[in-house]
Amino acid sequence: MIDRDAIRAAAARIAPHIRRTPLLRLAPGELGPDLGLAHGLVLKLELLQASGSFKPRGAFNTMLAGPLPAAGVIAASGGNHGAAVAYAARALGVAAEIFVPEITGAAKRARIAGYGARLVVGGAAYDEARQASERRAAETGALQVHAYDQATVLAGQGTVALEWSEDAPELTHVLVATGGGGLIGGMAAWYAGSGTQVISVESEGCPTLAMALREGRPVAAPVGGLAADSLGARQVGALGFAVAQRHVAAAVLVPDAAILAAQRLLWEAARLVAEPGGATALAALLCGAWVAPAGARGGASIGVVVCGGNCEPGSVAG
Amino acid sequence: MIDRDAIRAAAARIAPHIRRTPLLRLAPGELGPDLGLAHGLVLKLELLQASGSFKPRGAFNTMLAGPLPAAGVIAASGGNHGAAVAYAARALGVAAEIFVPEITGAAKRARIAGYGARLVVGGAAYDEARQASERRAAETGALQVHAYDQATVLAGQGTVALEWSEDAPELTHVLVATGGGGLIGGMAAWYAGSGTQVISVESEGCPTLAMALREGRPVAAPVGGLAADSLGARQVGALGFAVAQRHVAAAVLVPDAAILAAQRLLWEAARLVAEPGGATALAALLCGAWVAPAGARGGASIGVVVCGGNCEPGSVAG
Repeated sequence: MIDRDAIRAAAARIAPHIRRTPLLRLAPGELGPDLGLAHGLVLKLELLQASGSFKPRGAFNTMLAGPLPAAGVIAASGGNHGAAVAYAARALGVAAEIFVPEITGAAKRARIAGYGARLVVGGAAYDEARQASERRAAETGALQVHAYDQATVLAGQGTVALEWSEDAPELTHVLVATGGGGLIGGMAAWYAGSGTQVISVESEGCPTLAMALREGRPVAAPVGGLAADSLGARQVGALGFAVAQRHVAAAVLVPDAAILAAQRLLWEAARLVAEPGGATALAALLCGAWVAPAGARGGASIGVVVCGGNCEPGSVAG
Repeated sequence: MIDRDAIRAAAARIAPHIRRTPLLRLAPGELGPDLGLAHGLVLKLELLQASGSFKPRGAFNTMLAGPLPAAGVIAASGGNHGAAVAYAARALGVAAEIFVPEITGAAKRARIAGYGARLVVGGAAYDEARQASERRAAETGALQVHAYDQATVLAGQGTVALEWSEDAPELTHVLVATGGGGLIGGMAAWYAGSGTQVISVESEGCPTLAMALREGRPVAAPVGGLAADSLGARQVGALGFAVAQRHVAAAVLVPDAAILAAQRLLWEAARLVAEPGGATALAALLCGAWVAPAGARGGASIGVVVCGGNCEPGSVAG
């Protein structure tokens, strides 16, 4: 199980390479007087992280945790993880091969290639790309960086919580979007046993963690809807699930309409461009999928991770 | 002359209403390895301020500095100032009339009206709208909030520098875009006599302060180019000019191409959507209009205000 020491070690390792992302504090009325939120919000602006999402934290930690092979690194991802590994490889001066599925769009391919990685189209869907990347890694000896189910990845993503607990120790609840479980696993491991509860938010189209918690084990889940490109893991990772089962206070689902509303609100109220997965945590407050406990409403202090901004910027305007 | 006491008083007055905007620290290579910047940057994210620019600081300070008349407030502006006054009036529960010129686009009109202000089209260009607003204020007794040339406005905008000097005391130089002189005047008044030099950046299309400094007095300047909607004051204000003449270290001009490049870079490297005027200060570093002094390059610590984000978000993509 990932613990605070592993996350502290990750933070020290990655500090020269990642941005300590800032917070934006919003008073109750600032997201619009009609929302009726009884509490202010503390947004963690992880969308301003290098490469546009939190993913470089885990990528750098994995690449710096041991000696890097001469063959460099390899990853499978059509999205934020691929961009983050390519970014980290460039920063550390090693080669990267990123295997993407055919469905990956031109903009995301261009970003990965723009960081200097070798882009390989590895099959029709993510699973084929992943298998192709594993075969290639066996040939070359490159270090595989998993998108979520790897201890160094969880520890890296957990540094979001470490920074937040230092910069906003008053938080009673933090809302986090869940895809494959790397971010929520790392964050819940940090906050475990503290006064801060971690709430998982998923889109109804990608209910990976909610289904696993209900079944008591990781199970295959649907992958669809607006946030599928960043939250659409077929199955939650074993490591993240083990943490979430013990340390996540609630796992809620939100409809695509609430995600879109959250994207538009972040733009209207704070000039932030969040991709659908990046706006998913906030969506839970907008649609009431999660409400601060009645007793805590007055005293609750709510944090929301805005975890990515890799979308067409024009897509957030109403 | 505005002084630190006036700015401290403004900060105390407006604190319940404005956002203490966060900083984003970028290492030398993070804006792109090819830029050749020898120093890191500390961005002040004033584009995340309520209403999308720094303008509510001066608006709130003006409205809270004395008793508000029953007739509320009145302002002339087709852009960020009008939105800020409308926002502040809603927050304080008073009526606002905003006079806009005919050239003000539908999106900006909608934003001003969306904050609940009464929108009045006051003539073909800004000067006519301003004159119409002054006639109306004489009739109603409403408090006029000037877009820049008012002592309470300068003191309010100066709080950007107060926050920054607390949060990043190491800065040796700060780059600030200049329009009518409210922001640069307030900021230069704060930093006067400190170890931090203030650099004014204007677009070549709106060289208001640069021309005034050359002539030794405020003079009419051209209004054109990409940033005219936010930086296009015909003539720098007397108050801001008086401060700038004594306390601004340099006033440089940048071409529109550099402003566009800065907008694209802020999006690519940090997922920030800056309007042209909001990206103008950074543009000076990109095109070399301003370069840190040779002796200081190693030890220089450069701050850049990203002062507004009120544009179509899709306009920043390359």
